[in-house]
Amino acid sequence: MAKVVTRIERADASVIDGLASAGVATVHEAQGRIGLLSSRMRPIYPGARIAGSAVTISAPPGDNWMVHVAIEQLQAGDMLVLAPTSPCEDGYFGDLLATSAMARGCRGLVIDAGVRDVRDLTQMGFPVWSKAVFAQGTVKAVLGSVNVPIVCAGAAIEAGDVIVADDDGVCVVKRADAADVLKKAQAREAAEEAKRQRLAAGDLGLDIYDMRGKLEAMGLKYE
Amino acid sequence: MAKVVTRIERADASVIDGLASAGVATVHEAQGRIGLLSSRMRPIYPGARIAGSAVTISAPPGDNWMVHVAIEQLQAGDMLVLAPTSPCEDGYFGDLLATSAMARGCRGLVIDAGVRDVRDLTQMGFPVWSKAVFAQGTVKAVLGSVNVPIVCAGAAIEAGDVIVADDDGVCVVKRADAADVLKKAQAREAAEEAKRQRLAAGDLGLDIYDMRGKLEAMGLKYE
Amino acid sequence: MAKVVTRIERADASVIDGLASAGVATVHEAQGRIGLLSSRMRPIYPGARIAGSAVTISAPPGDNWMVHVAIEQLQAGDMLVLAPTSPCEDGYFGDLLATSAMARGCRGLVIDAGVRDVRDLTQMGFPVWSKAVFAQGTVKAVLGSVNVPIVCAGAAIEAGDVIVADDDGVCVVKRADAADVLKKAQAREAAEEAKRQRLAAGDLGLDIYDMRGKLEAMGLKYE
Amino acid sequence: MAKVVTRIERADASVIDGLASAGVATVHEAQGRIGLLSSRMRPIYPGARIAGSAVTISAPPGDNWMVHVAIEQLQAGDMLVLAPTSPCEDGYFGDLLATSAMARGCRGLVIDAGVRDVRDLTQMGFPVWSKAVFAQGTVKAVLGSVNVPIVCAGAAIEAGDVIVADDDGVCVVKRADAADVLKKAQAREAAEEAKRQRLAAGDLGLDIYDMRGKLEAMGLKYE
Amino acid sequence: MAKVVTRIERADASVIDGLASAGVATVHEAQGRIGLLSSRMRPIYPGARIAGSAVTISAPPGDNWMVHVAIEQLQAGDMLVLAPTSPCEDGYFGDLLATSAMARGCRGLVIDAGVRDVRDLTQMGFPVWSKAVFAQGTVKAVLGSVNVPIVCAGAAIEAGDVIVADDDGVCVVKRADAADVLKKAQAREAAEEAKRQRLAAGDLGLDIYDMRGKLEAMGLKYE
Amino acid sequence: MAKVVTRIERADASVIDGLASAGVATVHEAQGRIGLLSSRMRPIYPGARIAGSAVTISAPPGDNWMVHVAIEQLQAGDMLVLAPTSPCEDGYFGDLLATSAMARGCRGLVIDAGVRDVRDLTQMGFPVWSKAVFAQGTVKAVLGSVNVPIVCAGAAIEAGDVIVADDDGVCVVKRADAADVLKKAQAREAAEEAKRQRLAAGDLGLDIYDMRGKLEAMGLKYE
Repeated sequence: MAKVVTRIERADASVIDGLASAGVATVHEAQGRIGLLSSRMRPIYPGARIAGSAVTISAPPGDNWMVHVAIEQLQAGDMLVLAPTSPCEDGYFGDLLATSAMARGCRGLVIDAGVRDVRDLTQMGFPVWSKAVFAQGTVKAVLGSVNVPIVCAGAAIEAGDVIVADDDGVCVVKRADAADVLKKAQAREAAEEAKRQRLAAGDLGLDIYDMRGKLEAMGLKYE
Repeated sequence: MAKVVTRIERADASVIDGLASAGVATVHEAQGRIGLLSSRMRPIYPGARIAGSAVTISAPPGDNWMVHVAIEQLQAGDMLVLAPTSPCEDGYFGDLLATSAMARGCRGLVIDAGVRDVRDLTQMGFPVWSKAVFAQGTVKAVLGSVNVPIVCAGAAIEAGDVIVADDDGVCVVKRADAADVLKKAQAREAAEEAKRQRLAAGDLGLDIYDMRGKLEAMGLKYE
Repeated sequence: MAKVVTRIERADASVIDGLASAGVATVHEAQGRIGLLSSRMRPIYPGARIAGSAVTISAPPGDNWMVHVAIEQLQAGDMLVLAPTSPCEDGYFGDLLATSAMARGCRGLVIDAGVRDVRDLTQMGFPVWSKAVFAQGTVKAVLGSVNVPIVCAGAAIEAGDVIVADDDGVCVVKRADAADVLKKAQAREAAEEAKRQRLAAGDLGLDIYDMRGKLEAMGLKYE
Repeated sequence: MAKVVTRIERADASVIDGLASAGVATVHEAQGRIGLLSSRMRPIYPGARIAGSAVTISAPPGDNWMVHVAIEQLQAGDMLVLAPTSPCEDGYFGDLLATSAMARGCRGLVIDAGVRDVRDLTQMGFPVWSKAVFAQGTVKAVLGSVNVPIVCAGAAIEAGDVIVADDDGVCVVKRADAADVLKKAQAREAAEEAKRQRLAAGDLGLDIYDMRGKLEAMGLKYE
Repeated sequence: MAKVVTRIERADASVIDGLASAGVATVHEAQGRIGLLSSRMRPIYPGARIAGSAVTISAPPGDNWMVHVAIEQLQAGDMLVLAPTSPCEDGYFGDLLATSAMARGCRGLVIDAGVRDVRDLTQMGFPVWSKAVFAQGTVKAVLGSVNVPIVCAGAAIEAGDVIVADDDGVCVVKRADAADVLKKAQAREAAEEAKRQRLAAGDLGLDIYDMRGKLEAMGLKYE
Repeated sequence: MAKVVTRIERADASVIDGLASAGVATVHEAQGRIGLLSSRMRPIYPGARIAGSAVTISAPPGDNWMVHVAIEQLQAGDMLVLAPTSPCEDGYFGDLLATSAMARGCRGLVIDAGVRDVRDLTQMGFPVWSKAVFAQGTVKAVLGSVNVPIVCAGAAIEAGDVIVADDDGVCVVKRADAADVLKKAQAREAAEEAKRQRLAAGDLGLDIYDMRGKLEAMGLKYE
C-alpha cells in the first residue's frame, strides 16, 4: 500500500509560469470555478505568487518520514503538497527540510497541517501555505506514500498537477488542462483590463454588464 | 422583498473623521461597550484606520450581484457592509469591484464572507475587513437588498450608521448617536493621556485607580 | 480562594536569554517535544522572539482586574501569562496596561483570550501572543488569582516557569529544567548546523539519516 | 444603560401556538427566508416544538444575574432569550432557574451560551436551545438589561417577538408580522400536502414544478 | 460544464448489503484505513446502518436545484451524496425531497451541508448524515452536476461508489474494490470475534498481540 | 521519557460514588468552580452519570498502543483518561478495547480525541466522553506514557484523581480533595432542595437571594 511513484508527468514550464503570473483567482475562474483548496490554507508570509508541479505526499498524522522520501523525487520547479491521512496540525516541516527542498529546486510547500520555523522560512524565501503554524515535532515511524492521488484541503490532487498559490490561497489545475486553462486565464486578464479602465473612470458595472433590465425584470425595487 | 433604498441619512463628515481618529477600541468604550462586530472580522492588511457611512448589502450565499447595485448608491466617504443571508466564505469582492467602489469615493469594505485579489487590494490601498480570504467566484443570479437593516458578524447595522474599522476590528455607531459618541471618545482619550504618563513613570493602576481597598474588602489575599 | 503569591522563583537570566535565542521549535524539541501551547496562540506582529519568567494570572471571563494586580508582581524580564477561567476572547489588555507593564520591565504577554490596541502595541514593541484580537472591553468586578498554577491554551504553567515565544508560537519550560533544556537546545542547534550545510549542498535526508534500509524493510515500494 | 423594560407587547396566543405547530422550517419559508438563528443553536433533547413571546436578556459573559431579573418579567407562554455581550459558553442556566421559570409559565430558553443540568431539564421537560452544554458556573456581579433589543446567534430580536423552536433550530418572527406569517405558513403547509402525495406516488419534482425546460434552456446536458 | 451522467455502474446488491452489515469502522479498516469522510458528518438520528450506491451531486452554495435532477437518476438501493461547490450549511433537503427520494428506493443522504425537517425525516426513517441541521431555505437558480466525481467532506467519491454509513460516520468504497473489501471485512469480523472472547475473559491485548517484548525493546519503563 | 507508573493512589470508593451521585455541575460548584474539561467533551449517549479514578494516558497522535498498556493498570472502579500529545480526532478506542477495559472493571473513557464503534459501546453500556466520533484507525508504533500528569481538554489531571462525568460533561477532582469536595457537594445539594421548593412555589430568586437592593444600588432601572 505504501509506495513511491517515481515517474510523473509534468506540464510545460512555460505554462506553469504563465499560471503563476495569472494568479489564483484568475486561474480558478478560467477553469470554471473549480480547484480551490479550502480557505484555511494561508501563506506564512504575504507576497509570494508561485506555481509548480505537485509532488504529492500522503502522510500519517504526526509523522513526516515521507517528506524525506518525497524530496528525492523533486525536480526543479516542483512543489510539495502534503495531506495527512487524518486531521493534524503538527509541524511536519521546518527550515532543515526547506533547505533540502530548495537545494532540489522546490518552489514551495502546500500542507494541510502545520509548519514551523516560519521566521527562517520567510528569510529563506521559501513560501508555505498551511492550515496552522505549530512547532509540534513529528516522528519517523510509519510509512505513507508519495505521488499518489490525494485530497488536500478539500481538493483532489494528482502528482504532476499544477499548483498555483498566492495571497488568495491555493488552486490546483489538472496537468492535462493546464495549457488550455492558461489561454483562458490570459483571455480573461485581457478582458478585465478594459473593464478596469472603465470602472476606474466611474462607469458602473450595472451599465458595463447591462444589468439594469434583468434586475428590474426579476423584481428589484428602488425606494 | 428585494429592494434598494436610495436615500439614506449620513452623519456629519467631521464626526465620521473624528471617530476614525479615535479608533475602534476607544469608540467602543465611549458608547458603553456596544457595537463590536465579531473578532472573526480581520483586516486584509495592517495599518488602516478608517470610518465611513454604511451602505448595507444583504446578499444570497455565493452571489455578488447586489454589490454592483450597491456601488451605484455610494457617496464619497461611504463604506460597503455586506452580510450574506446564510454563512458563506466565497470571494464576493476583488480588484475590479474595488476599482469601481474607489471611483465613487468608497473608503473600504466590511464583509462577513470572503474577499479575493488581496494583493491588488493592498496595493490599491483599499482596506477590507472579512472573515476569510478566499478566491471562490460568485454568481449573479438571485436578488438581495441594499440599504436595509442587516446583522453583520453579530452586530445590527442600518444604512447610514457609522462604521469604524482598524487593526482591532470593526465597530458600528448608530448614526443618531455619532456626535455624542465622538465627544465621549475625545474625553476618554484626553483622560487616558494623563494616565498613560503616570503608568509610564511607574505608577501602578492599583494606586491610580485606588483599587487596593476594594480588592482587600472582597477578600484578595497576598501570600 | 482568590490569592496573590508574591514570592516566586525564577530561572537564571542567562538561561532565559539563551532559550529565547534558541526559539520555540528548538526548545520544544530539546525538552522532548512537550510544553507547546495551542496553535491558536498567534503573535500580533511578526518578528518577536523572546523569553521570560511567567507571572501567571487566572482571571474570570471578561474581567481584567487581576492584570492590574499582576503588574505589581512583575520584575524586569518577566512575562504575563493569562488564562481565563472559561473560554473568552474579550480584550483584557491594551496600550495602557502595556505601558504599565513595560515600565516594570515586562517583556510581553501570553493570553488565551483577546487583546486590543494592537497597532499601538506594535509601535511600542510590546509583543503579545493571543487567541484573538478583539476590542471588547472588560470589567473589574470579580477576583481571580496571580502566580498560581494555570492551564493556558492547553499547557500547564506555574509562576516562574520560562515562557519562550516567537513566530512559531509559545512554549513553556519548567523552571527547574531550564538550564538543562538550554544545554540540549544548544547541542541540537550545533548538530543541525552541520546537517543544514549538507542538505544545502544537495545531500538527501534519506542518506544523511540512513533511512533507506529501514524504509525498505518496512515495505516501502518504488514504482 | 442597564435597564429592565417591564411592559412589552405580545402576539396573540393563538397565533403563537399556530406558529409552533407550523415549525421552524415552514415559518422561516413563510416569512421570506429570514429570521433563523445560527445552526450552532441546538436543542438539549429531541422532540420539542414550541413557540413563545421573547423576554430578552443582554448579559455580561459569565454573569447570570439578569436571568433572575428576567424571570420576574415572564408571563405564561413566554420564552427566555439570552445573548451574552461577548462570546461565552458558560452555563448560565440550570435546573433551579428552570424550576423558577416554569413556575411562571415559561416555555423554554434560547441562549447563545451554555446550559447545564441538562439531564434534569430533560426530565422536567424544559426545552433549551443553546450553543453549548457546559457546567461552568457564573457570577452575579455586573448588570445587564432585560427586554431590550438584542442580537442572538446572528438574529435581531426584540422583546415580544415570537420565537419558534424545534429540532431544526430557532426562528424569530417580528411580533407585528406574526399573524400574517401564520397565514402564509398555513397556506404553505396546505400546498405542501398535495405535493407530498404526488411525490410519494413517484411523481418527480422535475415534472411537478415543470423544471425540465428551464434546465435545458440554461444548458444542462444529459450524457 | 453542468451535466448529468445518466448511466452509472453499481456494485452487486449483495456486496453492498454485506458492507452495510460490516459497518463503517470495519470497512474502513478492511480497505487499509482509507475512505472516511470528515468527522463533521453526523447522523440526524442514532441507529441507522446502511450502504448504497452513490448518486453524486455537485451543487452551488444555497441552491438545491440539482437534488431534483438527481432524484430522477436514483435506483432502488442508491444513496444521494451532495457536496456544495463552496462551504455552505444551508438546508438543501427536507421532508418533501425525502418523500420523493424514498419513492424511488433511495436509502439515505450524505450531505456536506445542512438538512432540515429532521423530526419528519426521523419519523419517516430516512437517515441523513450532514455537517449541520439548519432550516435555511435554498433557491433553484444555478446549475450544478449529477454523477460527476466530487470531493465530499474530504473524500473523493465517484458515482456508483459504495457509501457505508452508521453511527460512526460515513465511508466510501470504490465500486471496483467493493467485493474485495467485503471479503476482507468479513475476515476481519471473524478474527475479531475470537479476540473479543479472550478480552472479555480478561486476557490482555498486551498478551494476545504479544506486545510486551516490543514495548520493552523500544524503551518503555515501568515504575 | 516513555513510562508507566504502576502504583497510584486512589480515593475511597464511597467518596467516588458519592461524587458520581452529585454530578458534574454540583461537584464543579462545590470545589470552587474549577476542574471542568472543555465543553467539546460530549457523551456518546445520554444518561450515564459516573465517577472513577483516573488512569491517565499520554499518547501520540493516531497511535493507541498505550491504551493496551493502560488497560493492564486498571482496577475495578477506574476510568481511562487519554490526552493526545497534539490535537487529534482519530478513533483510538472501539468495542474490542471496551470489552477488555470492562473485563477489568473500568467504568468509562474520557478522551480528547475520537472514538468509534459507538453503537456497540452504547449497547455494552460503556460510556465515553470524547471530542469526536470518528472511525479513523490508529497504529501501534510510538511509545507514550501511562499514569503521568496530563492536560486533557484544558484540565490538568493526575493519575488517581477522581473523574466525574455525566450529560453536562466532565470534571476532575484532585484525589486529596475528594472527600472534602463530596461534603461540600452534599451540603450544596441539601441547600438547593429548599430553594427548589420555594422556586417551584413561585417565589422569585430576586427575593430568595435578596437581590433587589443591590441591583438598585448598582443602578438597574425599571421602565
